Amino acid sequence: MTPELKNDRFLKALLRQPVDQTPVWMMRQAGRYLPEYRAIRKVAGDFLSLCKNADLACEVTVQPLDRYELDAAILFSDILTIPDAMGCGLYFEAGEGPRFERPVRTREDIDALPVPPMADALDYVMHGVKTVRRELNGRVPLIGFSGSPWTLATYMIEGSSSKDYRYAKGLMYSDPGALHTLLDKLSTAVADYLNAQIAAGAQAVQIFDTWGGVLTEPAYREFSLSYMENIVRALVRESEGRQVPVILFTKGGGAWLEQMAATGCDALGLDWTVDLGQCRTRVGAQVALQGNLDPSVLFGSDDLVISEVERLVRSFGPHPGHIFNLGHGINQHVDPQRPATMIAAVQRISREIHSGSH
Amino acid sequence: MTPELKNDRFLKALLRQPVDQTPVWMMRQAGRYLPEYRAIRKVAGDFLSLCKNADLACEVTVQPLDRYELDAAILFSDILTIPDAMGCGLYFEAGEGPRFERPVRTREDIDALPVPPMADALDYVMHGVKTVRRELNGRVPLIGFSGSPWTLATYMIEGSSSKDYRYAKGLMYSDPGALHTLLDKLSTAVADYLNAQIAAGAQAVQIFDTWGGVLTEPAYREFSLSYMENIVRALVRESEGRQVPVILFTKGGGAWLEQMAATGCDALGLDWTVDLGQCRTRVGAQVALQGNLDPSVLFGSDDLVISEVERLVRSFGPHPGHIFNLGHGINQHVDPQRPATMIAAVQRISREIHSGSH
Repeated sequence: MTPELKNDRFLKALLRQPVDQTPVWMMRQAGRYLPEYRAIRKVAGDFLSLCKNADLACEVTVQPLDRYELDAAILFSDILTIPDAMGCGLYFEAGEGPRFERPVRTREDIDALPVPPMADALDYVMHGVKTVRRELNGRVPLIGFSGSPWTLATYMIEGSSSKDYRYAKGLMYSDPGALHTLLDKLSTAVADYLNAQIAAGAQAVQIFDTWGGVLTEPAYREFSLSYMENIVRALVRESEGRQVPVILFTKGGGAWLEQMAATGCDALGLDWTVDLGQCRTRVGAQVALQGNLDPSVLFGSDDLVISEVERLVRSFGPHPGHIFNLGHGINQHVDPQRPATMIAAVQRISREIHSGSH
Repeated sequence: MTPELKNDRFLKALLRQPVDQTPVWMMRQAGRYLPEYRAIRKVAGDFLSLCKNADLACEVTVQPLDRYELDAAILFSDILTIPDAMGCGLYFEAGEGPRFERPVRTREDIDALPVPPMADALDYVMHGVKTVRRELNGRVPLIGFSGSPWTLATYMIEGSSSKDYRYAKGLMYSDPGALHTLLDKLSTAVADYLNAQIAAGAQAVQIFDTWGGVLTEPAYREFSLSYMENIVRALVRESEGRQVPVILFTKGGGAWLEQMAATGCDALGLDWTVDLGQCRTRVGAQVALQGNLDPSVLFGSDDLVISEVERLVRSFGPHPGHIFNLGHGINQHVDPQRPATMIAAVQRISREIHSGSH
């Protein structure tokens, strides 16, 4: 028996339906800025072990909901689970970000990559989704997610994060066919992975295209957006009698919102470099918009946080279809009191706007 | 006696005057991708010693002109000379990028910063400009440059390069007045520095706003663009009986071109993420545009390089006012044959367009 969803503001806003107040969540809301997260992390050992332990992953997923009035939970996991499941050997060097033991550099490497069924290969993720759903018991919806094919490909090809994407973009410009083969495999895997998460209980999904913004416009269309469009089309968009909305987030993709909206997704994530009001004017009611407070605003005073929230919420205006979020993950050095101030301001100001009193 | 300038395509294009073919230069054209540069670098020792040795700096400045048919030279130097002159203690860790011994974190640090006259404090730069002008002997114009106040401030505050600008943006949101004091000092210093370079012989100047693109739109206007506008106004725009054009380059600033053009500068540098033709439509003939090939295209085949050059040059069309460049510095791993292919393609295709035969 699925418990009734007690707070569906987030899902409604994603579908451009009216809500009493703007829903809010934060990218990386389960994370190092919270002392209770750091305590669990110590118990779990390294980051990947925490991702793979469903009970502990569930605990850190729910922690920010116990502290703040958030309108959605997001499964604690990593965007690079798929390449790990394909055999690339994900590991983390302390303070260095993700690494792969076996980078994918050549057409032979790419042809040899398996695409295992993700419900099995990443069963710990599905187990995590089910555990969190049980624990949430209808409190708020749970977001599933994946990296985009292009973003996964950059890490797999470089073997780590990169400043210039020398190998990934080198392959794009020297052997685009090989890159397309890799992206084909990855989009199959991502669609399968997200559908498995939806089957396990994810009530909305987000595709993180963290590195789409390093491409030229034609390259973005050919090597990132078109594969995300394939995934959007392949997703099971309904579960438990409700629509399962899909959010696309290309960091640095502010110039391409119209093209992203045309994929058939329900919402676009925005980083902080674009003006929310202008973005809303550009896409109208075609998609919802999620974002886009500069995460560094949380280093400012409470007054500053409130005034920046006000500017942002008012710039979107009284339309339905805004989900308040940061423009990128919350910084680990933020004072945990600041998000409380931010969320209270979103609630107060958006209630005023939605009730028609300005 | 100033020798006559034999090739003034670059200066003409910056002023939107007709030219026979599109001028071309490359950001970081004097650099590690050239074996002849690496040989001199070995002689000089570290990077800063090379910058400070006028004869060797002149030699590496001229190297790419001996190899390629470039239409401009740019002084071999670093964008962080000013904070070094202000006492922050610039140094380079191998493979780590720039560092400062004494970062600037507090209002007290900022108030204590001196703003020495740059012609004296950075006399090695002025000596370098004069040496290069003598060596060029009118072959092509010489570009002088500086980091923007915001970009210099980020390095001074962080003490190094940064992923999240925790301290710089933290200061912006927690004590904007202190940041404004720093930016005031820096814009005085940058204007003075560029004017000294112009007096020493720089025939055009470029302001590198490498990190303006990490700001929100209002923060960009308040903390980066307004200071660049002050600098543009303070520059001596004529020397040796010719206009000295000013180029603004904000990496990641594609959304703000209209505002940048309104500063009174002559040209805007574009990174590779924006469509050159669309940018031209947006700014019209108000400013010239410089850019914007994805530097990674140079990892592709000669055929790929030629087709990407063709797309770019044709997208700008037959108007005057395009300077061909990369959208960012040339990568150290590029095969030195590739730029030759690129430059020949720019020349051939743009001559066709400018002579009216498509």
